[in-house]
Amino acid sequence: MIISAEQSMALYKQIEELVDWLASFGRNESNGVTRSLYSKDWQLAQRAVEKRMKEIGLHAYYDDAGNLFGRLPGRQGHDSAILTGSHIDTVVNGGKYDGAYGIIAGLIAVQYLKEHYGLPKKNIEVVSLCEEEGSRFPMTYWGSGSITGMKSLEKAQHLADAEGIRFVEAMQQAGFGQGKYPDPKRNDIDCFIELHIEQGEVLEREGKSIGVVSHIVGQRRYTVTVAGESNHAGTTPMGWRKDAMHAAAELIQLLMQQAKETAPDLVATVGQIHLEPNAANVIPGKAVFSIDIRHSDECVLFQFCEEIFKQFAAVASRHGTRLHIDKWMDEKPVKMCKGLTEISESILKREQIPFKKMTSGAGHDSQVFDQFCPASLLFVPSHKGISHSPYEFTRTEDLEKGIQLLIKILYQLAYEDGGNEQ
Amino acid sequence: MIISAEQSMALYKQIEELVDWLASFGRNESNGVTRSLYSKDWQLAQRAVEKRMKEIGLHAYYDDAGNLFGRLPGRQGHDSAILTGSHIDTVVNGGKYDGAYGIIAGLIAVQYLKEHYGLPKKNIEVVSLCEEEGSRFPMTYWGSGSITGMKSLEKAQHLADAEGIRFVEAMQQAGFGQGKYPDPKRNDIDCFIELHIEQGEVLEREGKSIGVVSHIVGQRRYTVTVAGESNHAGTTPMGWRKDAMHAAAELIQLLMQQAKETAPDLVATVGQIHLEPNAANVIPGKAVFSIDIRHSDECVLFQFCEEIFKQFAAVASRHGTRLHIDKWMDEKPVKMCKGLTEISESILKREQIPFKKMTSGAGHDSQVFDQFCPASLLFVPSHKGISHSPYEFTRTEDLEKGIQLLIKILYQLAYEDGGNEQ
Repeated sequence: MIISAEQSMALYKQIEELVDWLASFGRNESNGVTRSLYSKDWQLAQRAVEKRMKEIGLHAYYDDAGNLFGRLPGRQGHDSAILTGSHIDTVVNGGKYDGAYGIIAGLIAVQYLKEHYGLPKKNIEVVSLCEEEGSRFPMTYWGSGSITGMKSLEKAQHLADAEGIRFVEAMQQAGFGQGKYPDPKRNDIDCFIELHIEQGEVLEREGKSIGVVSHIVGQRRYTVTVAGESNHAGTTPMGWRKDAMHAAAELIQLLMQQAKETAPDLVATVGQIHLEPNAANVIPGKAVFSIDIRHSDECVLFQFCEEIFKQFAAVASRHGTRLHIDKWMDEKPVKMCKGLTEISESILKREQIPFKKMTSGAGHDSQVFDQFCPASLLFVPSHKGISHSPYEFTRTEDLEKGIQLLIKILYQLAYEDGGNEQ
Repeated sequence: MIISAEQSMALYKQIEELVDWLASFGRNESNGVTRSLYSKDWQLAQRAVEKRMKEIGLHAYYDDAGNLFGRLPGRQGHDSAILTGSHIDTVVNGGKYDGAYGIIAGLIAVQYLKEHYGLPKKNIEVVSLCEEEGSRFPMTYWGSGSITGMKSLEKAQHLADAEGIRFVEAMQQAGFGQGKYPDPKRNDIDCFIELHIEQGEVLEREGKSIGVVSHIVGQRRYTVTVAGESNHAGTTPMGWRKDAMHAAAELIQLLMQQAKETAPDLVATVGQIHLEPNAANVIPGKAVFSIDIRHSDECVLFQFCEEIFKQFAAVASRHGTRLHIDKWMDEKPVKMCKGLTEISESILKREQIPFKKMTSGAGHDSQVFDQFCPASLLFVPSHKGISHSPYEFTRTEDLEKGIQLLIKILYQLAYEDGGNEQ
């Protein structure tokens, strides 16, 4: 299939329009977007996407978790569907592309295919997943997790948001969780294809248009507590101190050094630190900091953590401090479907579009689907890697390259393949 | 002069009683004491001390800053006075000894001398200084500073406390700053003698009863801002990061190492740190931390700071971060009056009381007086060095050793000396 220059121009215009349209739901004065799960703005956005789905001739429907689907029915009458999309929720004061791009891409691709090639052989569904970020309630991947059966309302219902509103209450206020819509768990999904902004700087720096994700990293998160002895900053000689900040500085320094030396793709971040009592003239008695460690190989993650925490114990003890390490997240690395990545690669090679086979350092809905059905994750560049910010930006020409790729993948999967089944 | 076992017993009882009595003003449920400058509890405490002064036959009077004096008039009719005391204000949820001990010591010593030896040759005044801690308004040594003329209402009046109450407003509500009382500036002080708890662990660890302070350290305080680049913790390779926390950890580590190696008495503390945006999954774009550096030799302080900040610049630049260093406190070291410390030393040697000539790592009113008149600072042990806490504790026998020393110093200065002037 060939997309003409004229058709490309039309796609470009349509992308610009839809990005602005979807960003208008939850937009604030600083041009950031906030669509917290089940909030008013979230509801308005889902209703708008539903309306758009109907306008382009899709059969739109919700499940009882609040996921929204738009089905382009296949001519073969099969039940199963090829799914594409991403999440509608955002972080607080986020950008216009994270999540939204995957939904817009699905809408535009399916509309294009329908207008130019009529109905496919296989069903295609565009999905606007209800939740991925974990920004309102302390749980991520509620949308993809409820479709794949990995998350259940039973566990989620008791969660509360920062204002104390219970999950089930928020859900019911938005009209879900009452059995009005079908159960979210699906058994009829052929595969899942997600377009997303990279949220990193690799593609832009390397001058690539598309990232074909081979792995999504595993993530471990820890809270490290160093307990020393709070004391007067003037009257306690250096040699007598059990300074929690001093110990923490050495631990962080060691972590960073080791992370750099252990494996090229390993990343370690200390994003939060808190001292007690946190006064300029008092030696800190306690330092609490976060560690986020990611790599695509579970074995590398395991070995690194084993080794670094052994060294941590030695450093803490040398400072006369006690160490407590609490692991509160352990997500395994995920290998994306080889068959699907190969389809993308062959299209990109044929079209001579510069791409990079890469690892995703961020988590995405694709990793949840990947444990359930073949799944593929495709990136477009993020300007300067900025994300979760009103400054998140991807050029429309880059967004379009991703959508053209999606059109071609869906064409191959839903229009060309399975011809022998007709 | 000899203090008999019976007299000592009476002193012991009196100390126990007065410590509890003064701690009752501003005491909270957790047994901490809060007497913020000009607050209700501060006023009640000053009124109670005033009453006590009158009961023991002193001439009690305030100055217009709120300092309270109790004069035992000398027989020689001189105008000038030997001053002893400390500050009545406390930090929030502080202990019962910091400041209070010096006032109680003065009251008990003068009462003892008056009862056993009648009126002195020279005037003695016990002072309850209105403010030292800087806990309510961002200014320390208001009491001693207003007496010595180093602080003026003109500069202080515009300060505001955490609730936005202006200094002059708080002052007037407490009845001061309106010209009702004499101007605080004095020109008639012979010398100042302050008893205080050590607020450190040196005396207790070394088994000494009294610390004779030869120097009070100089203090410099800085706020260091490290500006890097905030980025996604998963999608930004280690080599591309401008991680403000990583840079800060190396700077803190370097500071501590150098402080230990530079001079035995040098102390450096990082008591506060704050990251932005302070999220577990975001590389910090900014780290702001405090530095407190103290030493008794201005030259050592100067050289250390020059050297360390040169090294800081190199480290920050290696991390690709920008560094801003703001010095917001620079108190010079103070050498206490040699003549007065020698009087203490000779008494302590004669009485065979174990003492230590030492540096004070904390600031005290004595350092303000020392720039104005001969001043002496004497310590008693602090259990475990704990201070600014409800757990602040000094054994009554240790408090008594200090008060016996004060009685003997005052006797020598006000009763024995100057006999030829009669």
